[in-house]
Amino acid sequence: MTGADHPECRVVFSPSGKRGRFAEGTAVLEAARSLGVDLDSVCGGRAICGRCQVLPTAGELAKHGIVSRTEHLSAEGEAEARYRERRDLPEGHRLGCQARILGDVAIDVPATSQVHRQVVRKPHEAHDIRVDPMVHPYFVEVAPPDMHDPRGDLERLREALQREWGIEAHYWDLRMTQALQRALREGQWRVTVAIHNGNEIVGVWPGFKGRLYGIAFDIGSTTIAAHLCDLTSGEVLASGGRMNPQIRFGEDLMSRVSYIMMNPGGEAELTRVVREAINGLVAELTDGAGLQVEDVLELTLVGNPIMQHLVLGYDPSELGQAPFALASDAAVSIAARELEIGIHPGGYAYVLPCIAGHVGADMAGVLLAEAPWDRDEVSLIVDVGTNAELVLGNRDRLLAASSPTGPAFEGAQISAGQRAAPGAIERVRVDAASLEPRFRVIGSDAWSDEPDFRDRLPDGGVTGICGSGIIEAVAELYLAGVIDADGRIDGRLAARSERVVPDGRTHAYRLWDGEPHIVIRQNDVRAIQLAKAALYAGARLLMEKLGVERVDRIRLAGAFGAQIDVKYAMVLGMIPDCDLEQVSSAGNAAGTGARVALLDRASRALIQQQVRRVEKIETAVEERFQAHFVAAMAIPHASDPFTELRRAVDLPSKARPQRRRRQE
Amino acid sequence: MTGADHPECRVVFSPSGKRGRFAEGTAVLEAARSLGVDLDSVCGGRAICGRCQVLPTAGELAKHGIVSRTEHLSAEGEAEARYRERRDLPEGHRLGCQARILGDVAIDVPATSQVHRQVVRKPHEAHDIRVDPMVHPYFVEVAPPDMHDPRGDLERLREALQREWGIEAHYWDLRMTQALQRALREGQWRVTVAIHNGNEIVGVWPGFKGRLYGIAFDIGSTTIAAHLCDLTSGEVLASGGRMNPQIRFGEDLMSRVSYIMMNPGGEAELTRVVREAINGLVAELTDGAGLQVEDVLELTLVGNPIMQHLVLGYDPSELGQAPFALASDAAVSIAARELEIGIHPGGYAYVLPCIAGHVGADMAGVLLAEAPWDRDEVSLIVDVGTNAELVLGNRDRLLAASSPTGPAFEGAQISAGQRAAPGAIERVRVDAASLEPRFRVIGSDAWSDEPDFRDRLPDGGVTGICGSGIIEAVAELYLAGVIDADGRIDGRLAARSERVVPDGRTHAYRLWDGEPHIVIRQNDVRAIQLAKAALYAGARLLMEKLGVERVDRIRLAGAFGAQIDVKYAMVLGMIPDCDLEQVSSAGNAAGTGARVALLDRASRALIQQQVRRVEKIETAVEERFQAHFVAAMAIPHASDPFTELRRAVDLPSKARPQRRRRQE
Repeated sequence: MTGADHPECRVVFSPSGKRGRFAEGTAVLEAARSLGVDLDSVCGGRAICGRCQVLPTAGELAKHGIVSRTEHLSAEGEAEARYRERRDLPEGHRLGCQARILGDVAIDVPATSQVHRQVVRKPHEAHDIRVDPMVHPYFVEVAPPDMHDPRGDLERLREALQREWGIEAHYWDLRMTQALQRALREGQWRVTVAIHNGNEIVGVWPGFKGRLYGIAFDIGSTTIAAHLCDLTSGEVLASGGRMNPQIRFGEDLMSRVSYIMMNPGGEAELTRVVREAINGLVAELTDGAGLQVEDVLELTLVGNPIMQHLVLGYDPSELGQAPFALASDAAVSIAARELEIGIHPGGYAYVLPCIAGHVGADMAGVLLAEAPWDRDEVSLIVDVGTNAELVLGNRDRLLAASSPTGPAFEGAQISAGQRAAPGAIERVRVDAASLEPRFRVIGSDAWSDEPDFRDRLPDGGVTGICGSGIIEAVAELYLAGVIDADGRIDGRLAARSERVVPDGRTHAYRLWDGEPHIVIRQNDVRAIQLAKAALYAGARLLMEKLGVERVDRIRLAGAFGAQIDVKYAMVLGMIPDCDLEQVSSAGNAAGTGARVALLDRASRALIQQQVRRVEKIETAVEERFQAHFVAAMAIPHASDPFTELRRAVDLPSKARPQRRRRQE
Repeated sequence: MTGADHPECRVVFSPSGKRGRFAEGTAVLEAARSLGVDLDSVCGGRAICGRCQVLPTAGELAKHGIVSRTEHLSAEGEAEARYRERRDLPEGHRLGCQARILGDVAIDVPATSQVHRQVVRKPHEAHDIRVDPMVHPYFVEVAPPDMHDPRGDLERLREALQREWGIEAHYWDLRMTQALQRALREGQWRVTVAIHNGNEIVGVWPGFKGRLYGIAFDIGSTTIAAHLCDLTSGEVLASGGRMNPQIRFGEDLMSRVSYIMMNPGGEAELTRVVREAINGLVAELTDGAGLQVEDVLELTLVGNPIMQHLVLGYDPSELGQAPFALASDAAVSIAARELEIGIHPGGYAYVLPCIAGHVGADMAGVLLAEAPWDRDEVSLIVDVGTNAELVLGNRDRLLAASSPTGPAFEGAQISAGQRAAPGAIERVRVDAASLEPRFRVIGSDAWSDEPDFRDRLPDGGVTGICGSGIIEAVAELYLAGVIDADGRIDGRLAARSERVVPDGRTHAYRLWDGEPHIVIRQNDVRAIQLAKAALYAGARLLMEKLGVERVDRIRLAGAFGAQIDVKYAMVLGMIPDCDLEQVSSAGNAAGTGARVALLDRASRALIQQQVRRVEKIETAVEERFQAHFVAAMAIPHASDPFTELRRAVDLPSKARPQRRRRQE
């Protein structure tokens, strides 16, 4: 790099600040590599990929004692001019592999030219994502066969990878070798290979191929969501989702497990349909982005333990009964074809690890997205599904548990309950004076007391009440005094309002008289009480184990977290006391975690290590859980939540006197 | 193991001679392990497998200064008595896991109790085979699931393997995990697992399973041969073979390659049929041995480069034209299911490496069987098929080449030629005085001049002449003076014998007047001359490269080596000068090599390393080859082979004057 007989040029790279002296004529890419500057290249310095773009900057760098001039880089040559014409090199940008250093110069490496670039986080998301995926493309020129050289095509390819990129490809996929002969001859001995995990050749294409793609899957029991990502930029190119077709075997998870227990071999059927849905999404997303399924080299999947089992072809029956033994909690990195998922023949699927029998790979995804281990503050992370999965802790300790909330928060086991879908009541207000309700349904922004409400309803009209709707209804009815702290609907109010009506030996509240009637019955309130008590008791148990009285922040993950108004969660006493501003939705954190695992290979070792570190608490065997659960049945349960509540909800003043408090 | 408060007992193990002092009460197995004595165990000391049998021997061991008494081992307990009853423990034998050391004792470990036992070699075979296969069974007791322990079944299994056997199972097959739940529950948490390569769990069975099986395949272009082996004892339980069904796409290799070149996609068809034949043999051999195909955990395969390509699903077209580029020469260890071969779902297939474009995995197998690298003498190893593959050398250097002999030695391209099969003439004698022939066919031990010859013919009668038959015929005709040193059939002899007849512008020799007529034509002699010249020239070239004038020994591998009478190979000048006693058949050395690779895992690293070390000579680009080839056309070609010949063949005295010599 430096020689006594060459004048030496001083070079400073930004933003790294790395600098060195180089012989005149050294290529910028070569200089960057020798200093360990993060400058990308796929084509290996052949002016093909354009990944090594740099920006020379002129001016005096007092700190480094040099005067940088852009003309201290060699003039644009033929190869670079061809690239500029063909691929549109922005003004001032140079190809690092072509521009040669002729004198002192400062060189900026833009973010898009860094191997380890970052995807800037979106609202809800806790941090940026580092982009350094498990699979990378490399362009190589392979020596053609020669009568004097008896080595095979594969061996000459491996030699080229070693020579040009320093890659020791100890492993290779058989399908790649089967395709290699044709690719080498079609590409006239210039091919791009995909290297998985730094040592396995999984794909080969004739000529140059600069971009590989991956898909992150979040396999929910109701919905399967997927994000197609460019593995170079980290960008999401397309997102999609579809119903989990397993629903026809049971609306909630436990009924699907029951189906399997009643129908031996049924697990194979459930595995088949979920894999079909995944294949359908792969086809749909790639098609929409103008790609082939073979362009997808990597998948990541998160899901609750039952979904994780079914995707991997494990029988989940054991998860339906004590002691709730997982077949395996380990992360799995496996050829996608072994899961019967059709992507590139050498493509891999990575299924995140489970944490415990009821705390799944979905929570592992949430943790990757939230990274509570990076914080001093104690976070409570809540993911509500059929069970609530809870993680509590900070950089020192992390504890996890699941609470048997049942599916009430998802609208199941509620008399007019339904999944969150167009037509479902999702927002409810009850006037504390008149006891009259108003509400809004998914798919319309009109409140029910607006004159054109019916005209603005989605097709099918008002169809039921979803999880967030029933939570708001119970909380508002409590704030209006219709429900007391014990959860009883006060029948005496029937005298004051036609909304409160006798219902057998209890009373009910008429929310909507359309077709179907939507009524909040005493049992619905009880179901919500049971669910919220379980959730609260789980959180309380973890706080006790961690030895904290308060949590610093609460993150609500998933659809539930995005839909519910956290005020009402507070009013009901679903979650422990916390500064309301520190309670927020984490969005689809499980899906974000799948995306992190897709884009940043280092995140996989991280989550596998963190998952081992997490202390698993089994609520079913903890006596204290039962005590917390009973104490948490009342609304609200906290000893003095009043201050919090006043801040949380703009209470109608008349409502206040009617509210009663209950001591634990 | 030893403690200050325990009396110490002196223990000597034979045949290793290892010895140590142990506290009274130490189990023999434990003592053996702590000394590194090679004593087997599958059940981990539970008196189930019987692999740790030892034989205490009484007497004074002056060398070790101890007096050994068999009563210095604890008396037989309940578990051992149960084993003796159930499994027939031989008199005097004890279970090493049960017998405890009570005083000074000498203990013999019989060969059958050693992990690294050896299979004694058979005639033809060059050395014993060490038995330490890639896959081993281990019996473990797994902790049952527990509400307080959220680990999965797999994780508890891995923990048991670590605890009981010190095995870190970093990898596992998905199908094993899918089967694990059931196996653990059926076996009441006692299972046997198969560990591949010391770190991957590939199979699981409820309870104890002491034996795993493997099959070694030799994929010839004509015949596929297979040996089913017990991976514990190394014993061959069953052998079988069948025609290579690819024959319907072309009798010889090059016509199959032509078929593929003429019918794009034809390689998939050839791959399919060869894999079907392999599957058929797996089923046939296991069925015959009373086993299931799932009992087979490991396969090894050898074959020439084209067979290796087709089994692996590589297109062999490139091998049909210069520069004869292999898709890959690397050894492949891969899940058998990836080759569509049905054995145990977690079973592996290992395909030996190729050496060069025309020196295949079959020669790699021959080398493993022959181990020329263990000798000081220079070996010439010859494997004749469509090409002759040659290796020359010793512990210092090894050289390999292939010679384009064409298929004449296999009976192809000979007017009455055929494969070696019942009815084919394989032995020929020509009386030098009368010029009358006599011969023998495969499937009968009668010579054609015996009165009941016709009655003793196999069904179909005399059908043609095979490789060894045409070689003997040409050599005998030369010795009888019918053929001169240039290979010309001497037409003047037509006057003396009705056997010599005009045939166009040349002459022919009538060998058999039945149906079909079998005649040795001038072109047949030319074909044999070309083939033998190519073979000799290849050997000569290698000798020149190695710098030797003579080889110390010659090993003839394969069916050709077993069938031909080496005398005649010498008479014709097919092989270089060598003491005739040092020329021998290596039997089916390629198949033996496949068996070595199956039984001894260390042999795989060895052959991969040796193959890299072999110097590859491409005869097609060596000018000297052409010179040797031309010089070798005459019969015989050596400057004075007479002394050798006299020793080699019991020449009829009258024949001698007629023979002429030719100077090179």
